[in-house]
Formats: sequence, structure tokens, C-alpha cells
Amino acid sequence: MKLLEEKILRCGQVLPGEILKVDGFLNHQMDVDLITELGREFYRLFSSYPISKILTVEASGIAIAFAAAQFFHVPLVFAKKGVNKNVGNDVYTADIFSYTKGFSTAVSVSKKYLNADDTVLIIDDFLANGAAVEGLMQILSLAGASLAGVGVAIEKGFQPGGKRLRERGIKVESLAIVDSMTDTSISFRTSD
Amino acid sequence: MKLLEEKILRCGQVLPGEILKVDGFLNHQMDVDLITELGREFYRLFSSYPISKILTVEASGIAIAFAAAQFFHVPLVFAKKGVNKNVGNDVYTADIFSYTKGFSTAVSVSKKYLNADDTVLIIDDFLANGAAVEGLMQILSLAGASLAGVGVAIEKGFQPGGKRLRERGIKVESLAIVDSMTDTSISFRTSD
Repeated sequence: MKLLEEKILRCGQVLPGEILKVDGFLNHQMDVDLITELGREFYRLFSSYPISKILTVEASGIAIAFAAAQFFHVPLVFAKKGVNKNVGNDVYTADIFSYTKGFSTAVSVSKKYLNADDTVLIIDDFLANGAAVEGLMQILSLAGASLAGVGVAIEKGFQPGGKRLRERGIKVESLAIVDSMTDTSISFRTSD
Repeated sequence: MKLLEEKILRCGQVLPGEILKVDGFLNHQMDVDLITELGREFYRLFSSYPISKILTVEASGIAIAFAAAQFFHVPLVFAKKGVNKNVGNDVYTADIFSYTKGFSTAVSVSKKYLNADDTVLIIDDFLANGAAVEGLMQILSLAGASLAGVGVAIEKGFQPGGKRLRERGIKVESLAIVDSMTDTSISFRTSD
């Protein structure tokens, strides 16, 4: 998606450790009009699927998933991190290892909000090693829900998550795929 | 706001410890169309202010604040919880005590995304003791930014946060103010 690639080139910053910092427009300060367009694009890509819910994980996935859910007019569910006494014990849980943060976090979704009748679109801001998506898929599997596909804003194409998911036949749509990045340049994979 | 009050009556649940559980539509599973209407209402209430940014705190404030920011067409900034090596040290920090969770959390905003030119609307899902709003106001104060006002979805009118803020002359707009609640009933303060 040209709009997103241009924004990454203009405002993204490459940091040591293969970190692409986009906190000026995507996951700390948010360009709300841009994110609304990302939501519209996810709708275009997945509108032929009978999606009943969108699932993401707090916190940086919420706005993008919300923007998409506005076009689908379906509920958004976000997996919560850690233990929260407001959620209670009746939850599906999975562990997600964050390579950026260097540790695992348990995430959970209340059993009330996912079930075997649901067809779910997973949305997140980043796809790198795929740990977050695989954790969310584990939760879907515990709930017996179907996966329609995975939509991410930015995929790090040089990390294995996207390839691994696609090899399993999962429809993964990334609005920008970064093939390589250095201190001074970012290059994107050309769309098919 | 009638729409929100009716939803709370239909789907909210009162738990021991003065907890109003609205995780079926507001802060775990989200009724996206309803939250979009909350955003529109915040715009109506604050559209005469020269708001340059909306500020909230992760995670449950993000969707509501995002919906409001879509009407204002201004950036949304969310304060991050804990320490994150992607944010770096150049941050404004405040402590927020959660009465629900029973402990304090440090929240921070990158210095790049708030400054003395900003007029900021704070938005959150709940206002009870006011700890989250006061933490965000402390961050605004560190940044030298101006506060336009505070918009919350649900205020617990029987807890002191809202009163305390209004006594200091701060414009606080709550879309539903719960005056009292028991296992079987929830009553709202009538709008002025």
C-alpha cells in the first residue's frame, strides 16, 4: 500500500537490532486518518470472507484493528496481557514471546467473546517472527473458532513469521513488506 | 448519552468492589459502532476548542480516543505502561495508581509527541478516583502543553475523581455518570 510505504519512508526510523521505529504515526503517536485508510484496505482485502469478529492484542494493535472493524461492522476483541482480576478465570490463554522486549507475556481472551461460530480476522501492527499471531491463533483454536486470515500493517519480510504462516496456507495480507533496511534506506517488496 | 446508558443497563454487570464490568462492549470486546458514536459525541462537546492532540493511556482508552480523534482529525497519543526499549529514555513519566488492580503503574509519553504548542483533550474509558487523568495531566504539565478538557465514557459519580477535577475548573464531560449501583440496578445522574 503506497500510502503506508511513503509514510514509513518519510517518518520511520531504523534502530539497531532490526527495529523499525514507527511510533510517530502507528504505535505511540497515531496518524488517525492514515490508520483509518489501513482499516479500509483490510476491508477491501477480506470483505469476501464471512468475518464475525476481529481479534488483536493490546496495545498497539487496537487502533488499527478498530479502524478495520468499523468497515466490517463487527465487534473487535483484544487479547489482554497479564492477569487482570476484572477478566476472571474463564479465559483462553496463550504465551507470546516478544523478540523486541526479550520476554514472554501471557495473553488472554474471555471465553464469552470467542466461540465455535466465529470466523475471525486477526489484525496487528507488526509481523516479524509471528509470535503474536501464533499466540492469537492458539486462542482461536482453544475457542474452536475459524481463522479467516491475518492482516498486518507492516511485515518484516526478512524475518520468518510471514513465510511460515503462508506455507501453512493462511491468507496473510501485509500492507507494507519491508525486505531490507539499513540506517539510511528501507526497501519494500513489490506487490504481486 | 442515552445510547451509552441503555447499553450499560443491557450489558453491564456490577461486581463486588464497586466494579462495573462493561467488557462485553467497551474494553475487551468492543461494540465498534457504539464507540464511533461516543467519538462523535466527544467531538460535539469539545469542537469549539483548538485541540491539536488527543491523549489517552493504553490499553482500554485507545479505541474510544481513536474514534474521537477521527472526528477532530488530530493525532492520538497514548501513554505507554512500563518501560519499553523502543520508546527510549526521552520520555515524560507519571505514576498511576489503579484502585481496581491494587498497584501503581508508570506511564510515559515520548517528549517528541507533546510540547508547549499543544492543546490536548484527554480521553479515557472510566473516571473513578481520577488517578489516570491526573497522571496524564502531570505529563501534560511536564510538556508545558495546555489541557482543553477531559472526556470519559463512564464516570463513577459516587467516587471522587470527577468532582475533584471539576472543582479545579477543568471541563470534564462524561457520557454516562453512574450515581449508584447494586447487584440488580444501576442509576444514572440526569444530564444538566
